Amino acid sequence: MNSSKAEAAASNLYWHHGALERASRAALKGQKPCVIWLTGLSASGKSTVANALEQRLHDMGRHTMLLDGDNVRHGLNRDLGFSEADRVENIRRVGEVARLMANAGLIVITAFISPYRSEREIVRNLMPAGEFVEVYVSTPLAICEQRDPKGIYRKARSGEIPNFTGISAPYEEPQAPEIMLDTTDKTVDEAAGIVVAFLKSYNVV
Amino acid sequence: MNSSKAEAAASNLYWHHGALERASRAALKGQKPCVIWLTGLSASGKSTVANALEQRLHDMGRHTMLLDGDNVRHGLNRDLGFSEADRVENIRRVGEVARLMANAGLIVITAFISPYRSEREIVRNLMPAGEFVEVYVSTPLAICEQRDPKGIYRKARSGEIPNFTGISAPYEEPQAPEIMLDTTDKTVDEAAGIVVAFLKSYNVV
Repeated sequence: MNSSKAEAAASNLYWHHGALERASRAALKGQKPCVIWLTGLSASGKSTVANALEQRLHDMGRHTMLLDGDNVRHGLNRDLGFSEADRVENIRRVGEVARLMANAGLIVITAFISPYRSEREIVRNLMPAGEFVEVYVSTPLAICEQRDPKGIYRKARSGEIPNFTGISAPYEEPQAPEIMLDTTDKTVDEAAGIVVAFLKSYNVV
Repeated sequence: MNSSKAEAAASNLYWHHGALERASRAALKGQKPCVIWLTGLSASGKSTVANALEQRLHDMGRHTMLLDGDNVRHGLNRDLGFSEADRVENIRRVGEVARLMANAGLIVITAFISPYRSEREIVRNLMPAGEFVEVYVSTPLAICEQRDPKGIYRKARSGEIPNFTGISAPYEEPQAPEIMLDTTDKTVDEAAGIVVAFLKSYNVV
């Protein structure tokens, strides 16, 4: 990043308001846009819950989009690695894309480790109040490591993968998430149901 | 960019297919997703046509999203300047976001100068065949410079703004755009109507 260059460039820009605003896009669909942000350790169940949640909302006729750490990294963020700076930039871009999609009237579901409290706050602050739902998938490290579906905790313990969240890189727990979700003793349906129930109480669906 | 780092990182990734595919998202809305890519010189009329087009499609009950050079540069691409490398990265990211939005079932309209043929080809190749509609807003430089609503051509001529497309940086004309649109002698309604007529003949709307 080069902020002085970006500032100089920005001085030649003029803000355009689109003719269509988010309210009219969302009204077309009869839903309230929001970002449902799942955070937690690798193998905590984020992607599994996110997929089940999206299917439930789709069955309810809601228009959703899922942004996932793995698929975004194959496209938009393919130029980024796993250093702290690159992880922060990864989440910054995802937050901006989620905001654009919410502006398009969508219910956006994201599933990213997003280990730093500050980066999650940045995304929360991009959104209007009440339209950011932080879901802390709080499955304990021991359980995640036991699941280890991709064998990556083993590689992280052996040092084969550096900067691995929970092992050799920090995970900063959310202090006031909208939802806490420990998937240790829950089925996927139960976990997705907890989020849907919250969204109903929150008047999102 | 650091492609060897990105490749090493990608080797630890596993592709997740979302439970919901683009077809079911689009079916929910009864529309065919696509990316309508407006390219052309500054002041050629891209943003004006894009806004009018979006309003027309919205009035037809279509669900759209507009990505615009100016508003993306205030958010997702705020870290980028106007060097050739940064311009290419700007368009690469916009292309990836447009692809994600089309996967969400939306009709995506973009308005970017996007001066390089190769970068527009990269975006075209991200999309399934028939879902990328390149609109060359071919208003001649002399007319754009005469309009100059923001006074930036004047600054470009004086050297105050470097790397300005059409003056001190190249614009590579599309060789086979789906639509050619010279706005010199057209009203905004006429210009938007030409695009809508094409989309109808293309079975997008």
